[in-house]
Amino acid sequence: MPEFVRRIPEGDDRERMICADCGHIAYENPKIVVGAVVAVDDAILMCRRAIEPRRGYWTLPAGYMEMHETLEEGAAREAWEEARARITIDGVLGMFSVARIGQVQIIYRARFTDAGPPSFAPGPESLDVRLFPFHEIPWDDVAFPTVRWALDAWRAQSNGSLGAPVGNPASDPRGVRRYTNPGRGDPS
Amino acid sequence: MPEFVRRIPEGDDRERMICADCGHIAYENPKIVVGAVVAVDDAILMCRRAIEPRRGYWTLPAGYMEMHETLEEGAAREAWEEARARITIDGVLGMFSVARIGQVQIIYRARFTDAGPPSFAPGPESLDVRLFPFHEIPWDDVAFPTVRWALDAWRAQSNGSLGAPVGNPASDPRGVRRYTNPGRGDPS
Repeated sequence: MPEFVRRIPEGDDRERMICADCGHIAYENPKIVVGAVVAVDDAILMCRRAIEPRRGYWTLPAGYMEMHETLEEGAAREAWEEARARITIDGVLGMFSVARIGQVQIIYRARFTDAGPPSFAPGPESLDVRLFPFHEIPWDDVAFPTVRWALDAWRAQSNGSLGAPVGNPASDPRGVRRYTNPGRGDPS
Repeated sequence: MPEFVRRIPEGDDRERMICADCGHIAYENPKIVVGAVVAVDDAILMCRRAIEPRRGYWTLPAGYMEMHETLEEGAAREAWEEARARITIDGVLGMFSVARIGQVQIIYRARFTDAGPPSFAPGPESLDVRLFPFHEIPWDDVAFPTVRWALDAWRAQSNGSLGAPVGNPASDPRGVRRYTNPGRGDPS
């Protein structure tokens, strides 16, 4: 296993982990968790965690964003992976910084895509998945403070327009166009 | 230098880079860029890049979020590092996914903290820093599409409330409280 030493690289102003063998700098940056409050009327889709930390506690479908997906794609993927739910995203409810552990959580408001009775089931990281009427949410068994923050945000804005912030423009919804000389020949 | 191989770890569903020597999994996740549209009346603070990519082109003060800071702290830090500007954040203007390179950009609307004539100067990564009246922005020399997207968002919402999303609650503005048993003895 390579040995890393902690020092300030040239031209930088903070310590990084640097490989003692080859000089590779292992930048560590905050990770993004994406998720959604998925609601039907006043009932919220929640997952009982099958994994640590906080196994057995209730959370929203959410998880680490992956490379080469958009925020919205990540939130929809997590809803499928953890709750076997197909969702459509309305807008952003909350953006939370968890500075202690270097994490940012982006939580959307969403609904089930398909009409008819809501379809969901536990994915491999969930022991159980349920739709809780808001007043029956098991607050004492909620996994993380950010879950409460997101649920509070939903209660404050359970419908209507969510306004700002804007996301990607319609011309590049996934952020995949190359940026060489964007100013030239692209008067948009 | 350690050799990494690309394969799917047990219990995962996508390929990761795994050290052939020790089995360490090098998860790669999207990085967060935080920045701000800092305005005085209708003039926008922009920086001419001293570094690649897009050296010599104009951008907003923005950069990679660091561990253990909040989004807002990161945006304020970048405004200081790149433009020697002390800023106060109003709200979130845009959240952009750049799926092609695994990046998320969170851009705030902000103003100069201090009263009186705006104070700014190039930091080490800027060749020049200027306040451009919106109609004088050098669109042909803007560094990245996301800079245009953020400027478009500012033009649409240059003042007034930005509404959702909510950020951290006042009781934990930096996300540093521990989460053990949040439900018990914490009726908030």
